[in-house]
Amino acid sequence: MLLHLSTWQEVETYLQQSGGIIIPIGSTEQHGPTGLIGTDAICAEAIARGVGETTQAIVAPTINVGMALHHTAFPGTISLRPSTMIQVVRDYITCLAKAGFSKFYFINGHGGNIATLKAAFSETYAHLDDLQIPNAHKVQCQVANWFMCSSVYKLAKELYGDQEGSHATPSEVALTQYVYPEAIKQAPLSSEVGSGHRIYGAKDFRQYYPDGRMGSNPALATPEHGKQFYELAVKELSNGYLEFLSAE
Amino acid sequence: MLLHLSTWQEVETYLQQSGGIIIPIGSTEQHGPTGLIGTDAICAEAIARGVGETTQAIVAPTINVGMALHHTAFPGTISLRPSTMIQVVRDYITCLAKAGFSKFYFINGHGGNIATLKAAFSETYAHLDDLQIPNAHKVQCQVANWFMCSSVYKLAKELYGDQEGSHATPSEVALTQYVYPEAIKQAPLSSEVGSGHRIYGAKDFRQYYPDGRMGSNPALATPEHGKQFYELAVKELSNGYLEFLSAE
Amino acid sequence: MLLHLSTWQEVETYLQQSGGIIIPIGSTEQHGPTGLIGTDAICAEAIARGVGETTQAIVAPTINVGMALHHTAFPGTISLRPSTMIQVVRDYITCLAKAGFSKFYFINGHGGNIATLKAAFSETYAHLDDLQIPNAHKVQCQVANWFMCSSVYKLAKELYGDQEGSHATPSEVALTQYVYPEAIKQAPLSSEVGSGHRIYGAKDFRQYYPDGRMGSNPALATPEHGKQFYELAVKELSNGYLEFLSAE
Amino acid sequence: MLLHLSTWQEVETYLQQSGGIIIPIGSTEQHGPTGLIGTDAICAEAIARGVGETTQAIVAPTINVGMALHHTAFPGTISLRPSTMIQVVRDYITCLAKAGFSKFYFINGHGGNIATLKAAFSETYAHLDDLQIPNAHKVQCQVANWFMCSSVYKLAKELYGDQEGSHATPSEVALTQYVYPEAIKQAPLSSEVGSGHRIYGAKDFRQYYPDGRMGSNPALATPEHGKQFYELAVKELSNGYLEFLSAE
Amino acid sequence: MLLHLSTWQEVETYLQQSGGIIIPIGSTEQHGPTGLIGTDAICAEAIARGVGETTQAIVAPTINVGMALHHTAFPGTISLRPSTMIQVVRDYITCLAKAGFSKFYFINGHGGNIATLKAAFSETYAHLDDLQIPNAHKVQCQVANWFMCSSVYKLAKELYGDQEGSHATPSEVALTQYVYPEAIKQAPLSSEVGSGHRIYGAKDFRQYYPDGRMGSNPALATPEHGKQFYELAVKELSNGYLEFLSAE
Amino acid sequence: MLLHLSTWQEVETYLQQSGGIIIPIGSTEQHGPTGLIGTDAICAEAIARGVGETTQAIVAPTINVGMALHHTAFPGTISLRPSTMIQVVRDYITCLAKAGFSKFYFINGHGGNIATLKAAFSETYAHLDDLQIPNAHKVQCQVANWFMCSSVYKLAKELYGDQEGSHATPSEVALTQYVYPEAIKQAPLSSEVGSGHRIYGAKDFRQYYPDGRMGSNPALATPEHGKQFYELAVKELSNGYLEFLSAE
Repeated sequence: MLLHLSTWQEVETYLQQSGGIIIPIGSTEQHGPTGLIGTDAICAEAIARGVGETTQAIVAPTINVGMALHHTAFPGTISLRPSTMIQVVRDYITCLAKAGFSKFYFINGHGGNIATLKAAFSETYAHLDDLQIPNAHKVQCQVANWFMCSSVYKLAKELYGDQEGSHATPSEVALTQYVYPEAIKQAPLSSEVGSGHRIYGAKDFRQYYPDGRMGSNPALATPEHGKQFYELAVKELSNGYLEFLSAE
Repeated sequence: MLLHLSTWQEVETYLQQSGGIIIPIGSTEQHGPTGLIGTDAICAEAIARGVGETTQAIVAPTINVGMALHHTAFPGTISLRPSTMIQVVRDYITCLAKAGFSKFYFINGHGGNIATLKAAFSETYAHLDDLQIPNAHKVQCQVANWFMCSSVYKLAKELYGDQEGSHATPSEVALTQYVYPEAIKQAPLSSEVGSGHRIYGAKDFRQYYPDGRMGSNPALATPEHGKQFYELAVKELSNGYLEFLSAE
Repeated sequence: MLLHLSTWQEVETYLQQSGGIIIPIGSTEQHGPTGLIGTDAICAEAIARGVGETTQAIVAPTINVGMALHHTAFPGTISLRPSTMIQVVRDYITCLAKAGFSKFYFINGHGGNIATLKAAFSETYAHLDDLQIPNAHKVQCQVANWFMCSSVYKLAKELYGDQEGSHATPSEVALTQYVYPEAIKQAPLSSEVGSGHRIYGAKDFRQYYPDGRMGSNPALATPEHGKQFYELAVKELSNGYLEFLSAE
Repeated sequence: MLLHLSTWQEVETYLQQSGGIIIPIGSTEQHGPTGLIGTDAICAEAIARGVGETTQAIVAPTINVGMALHHTAFPGTISLRPSTMIQVVRDYITCLAKAGFSKFYFINGHGGNIATLKAAFSETYAHLDDLQIPNAHKVQCQVANWFMCSSVYKLAKELYGDQEGSHATPSEVALTQYVYPEAIKQAPLSSEVGSGHRIYGAKDFRQYYPDGRMGSNPALATPEHGKQFYELAVKELSNGYLEFLSAE
Repeated sequence: MLLHLSTWQEVETYLQQSGGIIIPIGSTEQHGPTGLIGTDAICAEAIARGVGETTQAIVAPTINVGMALHHTAFPGTISLRPSTMIQVVRDYITCLAKAGFSKFYFINGHGGNIATLKAAFSETYAHLDDLQIPNAHKVQCQVANWFMCSSVYKLAKELYGDQEGSHATPSEVALTQYVYPEAIKQAPLSSEVGSGHRIYGAKDFRQYYPDGRMGSNPALATPEHGKQFYELAVKELSNGYLEFLSAE
Repeated sequence: MLLHLSTWQEVETYLQQSGGIIIPIGSTEQHGPTGLIGTDAICAEAIARGVGETTQAIVAPTINVGMALHHTAFPGTISLRPSTMIQVVRDYITCLAKAGFSKFYFINGHGGNIATLKAAFSETYAHLDDLQIPNAHKVQCQVANWFMCSSVYKLAKELYGDQEGSHATPSEVALTQYVYPEAIKQAPLSSEVGSGHRIYGAKDFRQYYPDGRMGSNPALATPEHGKQFYELAVKELSNGYLEFLSAE
C-alpha cells in the first residue's frame, strides 16, 4: 500500500490494523561515471515497495535527498545539512505519530544517512515526549540498510569480491539496472580507482576519489544481478520489518 | 533529462549548455475521500517531466513533502514546518548553485507551498551572497504553479464550473487519474461540502472541511480530462520555463 | 486603543469584550530618491490606528522592520531574514494568544512581507497546538494589505495610471506626505525607470532598478491624494477587520 | 535625522560623514496599574531622537518589542525569546554594516534587554567576521541605558528615594507623561508593593509582584519630572554617543 | 557530592532532601602570556567543589567552554556562540528540572559568560513553562561570579591595586597557581599593557590587547594568594548558595 | 600537553609542530546502581590524557555532556539534544581550525555520541568550506571509541564473557575504579538484568532497563582490570592517533 496512492480514509482504516510505516530514504549524489545520481533513492524505493507488498505495510513517499555533503564537489549532488535533515525527519515522524503511527521503519540506501538518521531519531523521541502526544513513548524508529543485509553482502562478495568497493558499488548499480534497464550507462572506467581514504569534506573526497568511485568496479554489474539483490533484500527486510512490528 | 537517472558527468556536460533546472514540488496531504494523498506531488512530477522533455531541461527529484500543516488533522498527511522547508530549499539551491546552476524553476502542485517557497528564495539569495559564490548574483528562482496556468484554469471552469472548488479539485484528481489509472478511487461524496472558510490551523480546517474537500466535486474527474490538463500545463509551463531561461 | 498607551489592566478589560488585535507591519527599506525609508511602516501604522479608532480595536506597536532583503543593496535598508521573521511573528502571537487574544489582523504596508507572514502563521498555528494552549484552535491570523484594497487600487489607477508602478509608488508616497508633510522630499527623478524585471537577490535588484523605483513616478504624489488613500484604506480595512472578527 | 523619514540617498550622503547610528530599543510589557505598556519603547525613542538632534546622528526605527518573558503573565506583554532577539539584532547590524555603518549605539529603555543585547553583539561580531565584510573588524556596538545615567539616577533618588523601585518606576512613568500627557493613567495603587524578589519565570514574577510594580510608587510621577529626566538623559547620552564615535 | 562521581540512585536520594545543584561554568580562552587557557574553568570548578563540600550540595560537571568569542584571535581559545550556549544551558536545565531539580546555582569564572547565561535563563524559564513540567514555575537560576565576591574584590585591591586589571588578573592566576602549582608559567610580561578599550570583536580585541592581558600584572600572583582567594570565595558563595536555597 | 594548563603562546608554538588535537568526549548519564554518572567522561578523559602524553599531543578540555537523551528518565542524567551537540562541535572545531588545527581526534567514551558526532563532522566540514578558511579542506575529524578498541574488547570478553553487556559494563566501571578508587560504589544488583531491547526513547528505555544496566554485571569490575583496560586503550589509541596524523 503506497501512501501517495491512498486516500486519508484508507490510511485511517489501515491504522486500525497497524501502526507501522515504511519510509524509503536515499540520496541524490554522484555514483561514479556510470552510476545514476539517484541510485540510493531508486534502490531504497524499489526495495521498500517490495517489502510493503510482502508485508501489507504502508510505504511513504521516498526521501530522495539525504546527507551527502561529502559528494557535493561533483555536479548534480544535492544534500541536506545534518541539522536540516534532523528537522525534516522530526517533522515527518511528528505528523505521522500524531495520526497514530508508532513503528517507523526507514529502508535506507545510503551509508551517509545513517548517523544523521540516528541523531534525528533521538531528537524526535525527546520532542514527542515534550509534546505529550498520547503514544509518544511507544514510538520506535529503525534504520534498515538494504546494502548491509547479510544475504546481500554475501552475494556481493561472491559476485564481485574486492571489486564491490564501498561507493558506486556493482551491487547497487546492478539494482538500478534491474529497476531502470533503459538507463544503463556506459563510460570509460579507469582501472585505477581511489580507495582506503576516509571520508571528510567534499573537496578532500574528490581529491582522493577523482571519478567518484570508492574502490569499486561497477562495470561488473548486470540487471540479472540486480534482480537477485532486489529479491534478497526484499526478503530479508520483510522479515526485519515484521520482527520490528511484533517486538515490544 | 532526469537528474536521478543521470551521471555526474552527464550533468557536467549539461551545465556547459544550460544553467537551468526544474524542481517539481508537491505535498503529501489528504485530498478528500477520493483524492490521492500524493496528488500534488504526482501532478507536479508528471508535468515537470513533460516540461523537461519538451525543453531539454534537467529535472530534479520531486520534493514530495511540502508545507501542509493545515491538513495534518487528517491521517496520512506529512508536512514540513515552514522553517524546516526554508532550510531544505536553501540546501538544495546552495548545492546546485555551487555546481553552476543558476535558474531554478519550481513546478509546484500545492498552493500551500507558495508562501514558504517565496520566503525560502529570499533567504537563499541572501545566503548565497554571504557565501560569496561566484555566480550568486545570477541565481534566480521562480515558482510555477501548474494549477494557475491560464489554460488550465479556463478548462477547469468549462468542465466543472463552481464544482472545481479549491482543494481536492476535479482537475487535479483528473490529472492523477491520467497518471495512475490503476489508482482511481471510489467513495461516497456528500453533496454538502465545506467552502468559504479561510485556512488557519489544522483542527480548525478539519472542523470546517470535515471530509477534506474545499468546495469541490472530484466525482466529475475523468482520466481523459486529466490528459487534457496535463497537455495544457506542459505546454504553458514549457513556454514559461524557456522565457525564464532567456530572461536576464 | 493603542496597546503601547494602555495599561495591562486596560488590556485585561478589553479582552473581556474582544479577542481581536491589529498589528501594523511595515518595512525599513529604500523607496526611491524621494520616498521615505519608513514608507511601509508609516502607512501601515497610520492606517492601523485609523482602523483601530473606527472599530474600537486595540492596535499593537508597529513591526517596523520586515522582509526586505531584496532592497539591501541600498543603504538604509534593514531587513529580517524570513527565518528570523517567522520566529518574531511566532513570539508575538504566542505571547498574545496565551493572554487570550485569538484574532490577529496584520495591516501590512509591504508586499515583500506577505509570503513570510503567511509562512509564519502556519508555523505558529502548529506551535500553539503543540503548546496545548486552551484557545489554540481558535487562533486566526490574517494579512490585510492596504495597497491591495480595491478602493485604493482604483483610485491609484485613476490618478496615476501606469505611473503607479509597483514600488515607491505615488500612492504610498502620497500617504506618507499626508502623514508627514514636513518630510516631503525633492530629488531629480529620471524619466527612465526600471520595470518588468522580477525580484530576485539584492544585487540583481539594484542592477535593474538603479534608483530603487519599480516603474513608478512618485512625483505625482500629493498630500491631498494621501488623505484620500488613507480614508479609503481605513474604511475598507475597518470593514475587513469587523468581518474577520465576526466570522467563525 | 530619522532613518524612517530619510531617503536612501540621504543615508548615502550621511555615511560619507559618519558611520554612527542610534537604535532605540524598548519593550512592550506591563508597567503596573498606571504605567503604559509601551513605557520602555516610548522613553528610548524620545531620548534617542533627542540625542539624534543634539549630535546630528541618524536614528533608526525603534525596536518596540524586546526581551520581556518574565512579564508575560500579564496581558498585553509581548516578548521575543532571547534566541529570536539575537537573530533580530544580528540581522539589523548585518544589513547596516554592509551599507557602511560601523558604530551602533543602542539607547535602551529596558533592563531586561541588556543581557540579550550583549549576547547578540558577540554573536554578530563573529558573524560579520565570517562574512568577510570589509569593515567587519571596525564594527562596534554599545548599549546605553538611559535609566542608568548617573544624572538620571541622582534625580530619581532625590525626587523619590526608595519609592523609585526597579520596575514601573516613577522616573520612567514621568518620562512617558511628559511625552504623552494625554495618556496619563489613574488607578488605585496598593500601598503594599512587592519587592526584593529576584526575577525568574513569568508565573513566579506575577506571584511576587501581583500588580506588576517592583517596589515603586509611580503615583509620584509628574510630567514636569519627566521633562527633567528627558533633558538629563539626552544630555548625558549625547556625550556618551560622541565619545563612542570618537573612540577607536 | 560530585554528580559525576555519584550513581543515579544517590541522586534520587539527594533529591528527596534538596532541589539545589551547583553548576561550575568557565571558559577555555587565552589568559595572557602566563595565564592558563583553562583559568576560568579551573577557578569555577575548584570553588564550586569547595562550596559543594561546605553546603552538602551536589556539583555538576564543569561547563569548560563558554562565551569567549572576543578571545578567538588567540590560538587555543574555544568558544560557543551565544546562540549555541543558550541551547546548551537550556538542555542542561531541562534535563535536570525534569528529574526534580529546581534551584540552579551557576558558579561562574568568566565575565563574558554572564550576559549569555542570563539570556539562557530567560529562554529556559519560558521553555519549561511551555513543556508543562510540573515544577516549571519553581525553577530558579542564579549566576554567582566568584571574582565579584566582595571579599575577593577587596583582597585583590589590597594585594594588587590597579594592577589587578580585568583579564588575566593576578587574582585568578593566583587561584590557578594554588590549584595547579605544577603549572605555574614564566614568560616575559611587557610593562606596557593594553587597557581602557571596550570589548568588541576578536580582531579588535587582539589589536588593543596584543598579549591578551587587560590592564593586569599577573606576575604579582602567588599560590598563597590563590589559597586566600579560594577560601574567601568558597565562604562567600557558600552563604550565597544557602540563601538562594532558602529563599522563596 | 593539556590545553587548559597551557598558555596561548605555548599553543602557538605547538601549532608550528603539529595541527593535531585530542578532544575527549563523554557523557553525564546513569550507569546502573553502581556505575558513576560521569563514567563515560572519566574514561574518555583519562585515556585521552594518556594518549596525549604518549604522543606529545595537545588534549582539549573534556566535553562532559553528550547525547544521552535515552537515559534521561533516570535522575542525574544531563543530555544535549543532537541539534545542540552539532552546534557545539561545530563551534569547537571552527575556533580551533581558524587557529590552525586541522586534525581533530575525538576520544569518545559513549556509544550514544557516535551518530551525532559524525553528523556534526559533516555539518562542520561544509561550514568551514563556506567560511573560506584557508585550511578548510585539510580539516579532518575522527571518532575513536576506546571501548571498541580490539584489545579492550578482547580483554572484556576474556574477563567477563556475556556479562560485559552493553551499558554500565564491568570494563568501563573497572576503568573508573582505577581512576577514582575512592568512588567505588556498592549497591545490590539484581541478577535479572534487562537485555536485548533496542534503544528508543527515555521512558521506553527505563521500562526495559529498570536499573539502568543493559545486560551487564558491573560487580565483576576491579580497579586492577581498570588499569589493564586503561593501558590497552592508551596504547591502541596512541597508535590510532599517530596514524591519523600521518595519513593524508
